[in-house]
Amino acid sequence: MSDDPSLAPLAAHRHRRASHDHELTELPEAVDIFDTTLRDGSQQEGLSLSVDDKLRVAEQLDHLGVAYIEGGWPGANPKDEEFFARAPAELRLSTATLVAFGSTRRSGVRAAEDEVLRQLVKANTEAVCIVAKASELHVKEALRATLEEALAMASDSVDFLRAHGLRVFFDAEHFFDGFRDNREFSLAVLRAAAEAGAEALVLCDTNGGTLPHDAERIVREVAGTFDTQVGVHFHNDSGCAVANSLAAVRAGATHVQGCINGYGERTGNADLSATIPNLALKLRVRTIPDDRLERVTPVSHHIAELVNMAPNPQQPYVGSAAFAHKAGLHTSAIARRRDAYEHVPPDLVGNGTRFVVSEMAGRSTLALKAEELGLELDSEALTEVLDTLKHLEHRGYHFEVADGSLELLLRRATGWEPGYFELDSYRVIADHDRGHLTEATVKVRIGERRVLAVAEGNGPVNALDSALRSAIGGHYPELAGIHLVDYRVRVLDSGTGTAAVTRVLIDTTDGDRVWTTIGVSENVIEASWQALFDSIVYGLLRRAAPPAASEERRLHPEER
Amino acid sequence: MSDDPSLAPLAAHRHRRASHDHELTELPEAVDIFDTTLRDGSQQEGLSLSVDDKLRVAEQLDHLGVAYIEGGWPGANPKDEEFFARAPAELRLSTATLVAFGSTRRSGVRAAEDEVLRQLVKANTEAVCIVAKASELHVKEALRATLEEALAMASDSVDFLRAHGLRVFFDAEHFFDGFRDNREFSLAVLRAAAEAGAEALVLCDTNGGTLPHDAERIVREVAGTFDTQVGVHFHNDSGCAVANSLAAVRAGATHVQGCINGYGERTGNADLSATIPNLALKLRVRTIPDDRLERVTPVSHHIAELVNMAPNPQQPYVGSAAFAHKAGLHTSAIARRRDAYEHVPPDLVGNGTRFVVSEMAGRSTLALKAEELGLELDSEALTEVLDTLKHLEHRGYHFEVADGSLELLLRRATGWEPGYFELDSYRVIADHDRGHLTEATVKVRIGERRVLAVAEGNGPVNALDSALRSAIGGHYPELAGIHLVDYRVRVLDSGTGTAAVTRVLIDTTDGDRVWTTIGVSENVIEASWQALFDSIVYGLLRRAAPPAASEERRLHPEER
Repeated sequence: MSDDPSLAPLAAHRHRRASHDHELTELPEAVDIFDTTLRDGSQQEGLSLSVDDKLRVAEQLDHLGVAYIEGGWPGANPKDEEFFARAPAELRLSTATLVAFGSTRRSGVRAAEDEVLRQLVKANTEAVCIVAKASELHVKEALRATLEEALAMASDSVDFLRAHGLRVFFDAEHFFDGFRDNREFSLAVLRAAAEAGAEALVLCDTNGGTLPHDAERIVREVAGTFDTQVGVHFHNDSGCAVANSLAAVRAGATHVQGCINGYGERTGNADLSATIPNLALKLRVRTIPDDRLERVTPVSHHIAELVNMAPNPQQPYVGSAAFAHKAGLHTSAIARRRDAYEHVPPDLVGNGTRFVVSEMAGRSTLALKAEELGLELDSEALTEVLDTLKHLEHRGYHFEVADGSLELLLRRATGWEPGYFELDSYRVIADHDRGHLTEATVKVRIGERRVLAVAEGNGPVNALDSALRSAIGGHYPELAGIHLVDYRVRVLDSGTGTAAVTRVLIDTTDGDRVWTTIGVSENVIEASWQALFDSIVYGLLRRAAPPAASEERRLHPEER
Repeated sequence: MSDDPSLAPLAAHRHRRASHDHELTELPEAVDIFDTTLRDGSQQEGLSLSVDDKLRVAEQLDHLGVAYIEGGWPGANPKDEEFFARAPAELRLSTATLVAFGSTRRSGVRAAEDEVLRQLVKANTEAVCIVAKASELHVKEALRATLEEALAMASDSVDFLRAHGLRVFFDAEHFFDGFRDNREFSLAVLRAAAEAGAEALVLCDTNGGTLPHDAERIVREVAGTFDTQVGVHFHNDSGCAVANSLAAVRAGATHVQGCINGYGERTGNADLSATIPNLALKLRVRTIPDDRLERVTPVSHHIAELVNMAPNPQQPYVGSAAFAHKAGLHTSAIARRRDAYEHVPPDLVGNGTRFVVSEMAGRSTLALKAEELGLELDSEALTEVLDTLKHLEHRGYHFEVADGSLELLLRRATGWEPGYFELDSYRVIADHDRGHLTEATVKVRIGERRVLAVAEGNGPVNALDSALRSAIGGHYPELAGIHLVDYRVRVLDSGTGTAAVTRVLIDTTDGDRVWTTIGVSENVIEASWQALFDSIVYGLLRRAAPPAASEERRLHPEER
């Protein structure tokens, strides 16, 4: 926890409404952002985190400035126990409070003897969050307990944890469905927790089916009933998790749970990368510290990398396409008045405006791009490059995601030739019985000289990269400062099996900037070669005469 | 258009509210679904459609049962002109009406002399949709016209199209932003269109920044002002496009625009794959014909394939993870009472419940899976297979997406050995100077026999597949009925450049069912070989003794 009183997460609650009898017509000043990426988010299919990964994700969340980080369930698996054991020594949190997650005591067991509750205490955090069933159906079907026992489980568990000096958040599972079926019981569960000293009553839409108008109505009723802070936890099964969170805040909730990038089981949890900017920029409700809003995009991308999920370009606010303009018609108007075409200024959330060049974009966008790069293209050259572009895109190239290859294409249209080296041939040999090492031979010309080189690698692309560097590295020592940082393969025409066209994208950096190059072929090795060739040529070009910087992506300091 | 009166798209409007002075408290009986995937959706970065693709997408949309299909902008590019020229002969629409898109006349030009409007008439559809600027800022900045001229442009253009016997939908661009800045002007634009005979006034949130409470308020005011049908068109820049569409219907809109799978520029348009089920199942408002709701998932997936975008597993209602249960804790309760854990029955939208097996899932899920497959695993075998699974998943395998490989793993745990053939070795040679053909040699044993075979292919995987089939196809003629249908590559650890671990997934079919197999290695060729090996072994196993059918994916009839 920071000493800075402006960061105190409960500020929201303290400033909340004066009366319970009236509808909340004014928005709260602030809400507490409770991130559950490391607990509920890790339930996402395809997402699996090591303890090291979890520690690094927590650092990023703290860097962003959320109030609470739910770190995991210490009673459920050894990985989460290790996380909480290492956290005090290895995590230096500045803004966030670490929270351990668990459930209420089992039915028929005393709280003091319940293993989950004991593990929660052992986790040694300042705050814990426990989940309790707040729906009659689930008490009867999943717990096979009486409603009275369910209330006692809630009450005893909060009591026990409070007696151990812990702050307790109370997740009321299946609350919205339960409220619709047996309103009195669901409210009684909340009352049991509140009376035992829970700090926040968190209404969970566990199955994710609630729509905003219903979320607003139910939260308003709960917020009007209890003095205790009300929180919400939405899943995105109806595609409304972000909207539900906003509706809940409008109705009186001041604690909002969710996950960065909307990770989570099934369709995911409420995406905090959209919820936070919506609350901060549109409803003017304080979430994370104001000067950290611009960290939303870099943190979202950094965490995507840590959890090893491909970022969604369409993601609101933080996606690479969120502020990308493609339509050719209005390009000039957009350039003149960005505020008229962007719902918020992208730099407020650490993102940026981008103009996309494609066959759809037409001459004006292409001309604009050439101008940005300081290239002079006459009308004839522009027509020619547009034709080439259309032809290549028809074959599967996509220059809008390959800035390096696009620039080389535009430069070639001005008559420029790279001339660094020329390929005569390459050969790749992969043998199953040589420990999966692949051998590559390249034969190139540098001026008049013919150079042959051979190298081994962990796969065809790695072997080709090593062989090419071995062939030309002596002549171009600057290559040592140029590294491939990412390599992506996409199969384009599904349905033709293994003979499908593949598209390879390679990201390369010289430590200062990153560029992307592309190759397309039915042969994944040939596609990789093309992207590799462009990657190296572009790197050599940058070293010789750095291109205009305006449209290039700068590396985030922490990515270097 | 169908003769069935229950499909008439304007039914919604005819049954609408009786008075304009009161807030709409009752939901409309039905709304018209207007799909703009082929027009606005095709603005998505990375999405590019041939005329053939567009015709096939339109067929799918009609099969789904939307009221209107916006096919493109005949004035803007030759591809869309060709689409409208071919549509009458090649499209047999049963439910949907095809709509051509365009803009109002240019400033200072007579409608009869405006090229875009003339192209619209030439497109020869029953209905057209034209876009007009409904915001003072955009009239002044982008059109550089007076407000009076903007009103005349709207009015003249609708007039002209009506005079040519066309039904006219009127897209009021930037309406929500415009309404907030200069309410009177934005309403005046609608009035001009309504008085000239527009059939629907479509309020467009062009920059996508509107939140649901604001959408509801503004739509309610417009719906209370005009007799003409009110429609909406939302973009997802705030992550609220679906929620905004629902809020608009609650406020009186009866025409809802959007795109299948939320395609579209930047963050996309409102996702009809979620909007339709939300309206139909939760608000009980008629959208597409009731008996076609179960087509939402197959049509969503089919269109994703046609437009060549990887489907999002997290997508509400239609995603492959939308009804996937991972948590090990409640697996048995979920199996007993699916309705308690699923917000709607997945079969209503053509999706299905799925239990996911992974290191997180624990023994109970794995035991359930073995039981489904009719395999008997004792406690020791279960422990062993769980350990193997965890170990492999740690290395990058993901059995939850590879049902074929998972089943082979489970079968091997029962002591089963495939024994169809054994690999001695393979070799792959790719030469740049041989027209990108790759050569593969495989050496296998079938029983006591050793067989060598060589084949060429369009790439390493294709060559290996051909060589393997050539080696064992004589012994296993049933292989002729087994085909690879998809091949996907994912680079796992971004940041290590070309030496990264790659994961290969292969989908295979025997014409009846599809199975997925997996391979993981630093070498893309080795990873492909592993997936290929499992794919063939699984196919041979199925032919010998078809496994239990319960959990397998049946091919949709149209996918066979």
